[in-house]
Amino acid sequence: MKHYAKPLGKLITELSRLPGIGGKTAQRLAFHILSMEEKEAMALSEAIADAKKSMTYCSVCGNLTDADPCAVCSDPARDSSLICVVETPKDVAAMERIREYNGLYHVLHGAISPMEGIGPEDINLKQLIIRLQQNDVREVILATNPNIEGEATAMYIARLIKPSGIKVSRIAHGIPVGGDLEYADEVTLLKAVEGRREL
Amino acid sequence: MKHYAKPLGKLITELSRLPGIGGKTAQRLAFHILSMEEKEAMALSEAIADAKKSMTYCSVCGNLTDADPCAVCSDPARDSSLICVVETPKDVAAMERIREYNGLYHVLHGAISPMEGIGPEDINLKQLIIRLQQNDVREVILATNPNIEGEATAMYIARLIKPSGIKVSRIAHGIPVGGDLEYADEVTLLKAVEGRREL
Repeated sequence: MKHYAKPLGKLITELSRLPGIGGKTAQRLAFHILSMEEKEAMALSEAIADAKKSMTYCSVCGNLTDADPCAVCSDPARDSSLICVVETPKDVAAMERIREYNGLYHVLHGAISPMEGIGPEDINLKQLIIRLQQNDVREVILATNPNIEGEATAMYIARLIKPSGIKVSRIAHGIPVGGDLEYADEVTLLKAVEGRREL
Repeated sequence: MKHYAKPLGKLITELSRLPGIGGKTAQRLAFHILSMEEKEAMALSEAIADAKKSMTYCSVCGNLTDADPCAVCSDPARDSSLICVVETPKDVAAMERIREYNGLYHVLHGAISPMEGIGPEDINLKQLIIRLQQNDVREVILATNPNIEGEATAMYIARLIKPSGIKVSRIAHGIPVGGDLEYADEVTLLKAVEGRREL
């Protein structure tokens, strides 16, 4: 970045550290930031600092939050006997978007992956077991991703919890709404047929 | 962004204001920023604030700089009798990357475009004429973009300067190095033939 003045070069370098942002994009973003109103640029700068400083993980469910326990865990209107287990905070946001789920969450921060050397003790699983022991939980919904790691994690947790008598369920696999049978892969279609429901 | 805690939602909103950054990308970047080391995140935040605060335009050539006049204009080793006219500061960086050009620059901050209502008085042209009058300039290289607006701007400036006796040149159009004749468009190929040089 030697062809740019130092503060600009530094900004381009910092932006290009972000995932999916290459040198050209970082340059484009940096020039855009310089062309923004001072107020707007400062808002972006402060939003980064504020988010980094104030966001933490909920000590109960592991979700990202600015208050501990998080808004979901501390909401008395939510059904505390229902826990949805997800891999990441993004998955919590996805679940919240359906506006139908009224239980609590548990964020694993990963999935079991022997290939990458991630075992059950490397994800936020122990805390889930403690929650199940200390609270009156009726059902655990396993909403890990439908890939090898997510399936393995779901299977592992199901086997761990089932002996305690708590109901364990897995979200359904199948053809996405608006999807096309023709373009569905074989495994998804097989899961869709296996999971068929009587009408 | 109601499914996220406030500081995170704010960060996603601010990031999604950047060009080419949609909601999904902003979300991905925000989560990445939260997962960064505190030091790294602060470096990004400060780089934005610093760049916005310290970068300004050179009063001589119009290039982005943190010192006025800019590093190029104040470098005694550069040939001040040669001025390369470009549209944007990014073009200055592109020219500097060839490591061969040793003259000064003049940044127009745009190009003449009657379609968009941008006339000669809307770009940084007056300052160029003043520079030519006040300094001993031997040659002006017009390196505006090879599109309609850039060509029109080059033609306009050439006609404006020529009467003063200063040499005016235009960068060559042709097949890019490593390019393929087969895939060159007709206009580029025509320009390449017109601009042929004897070997």
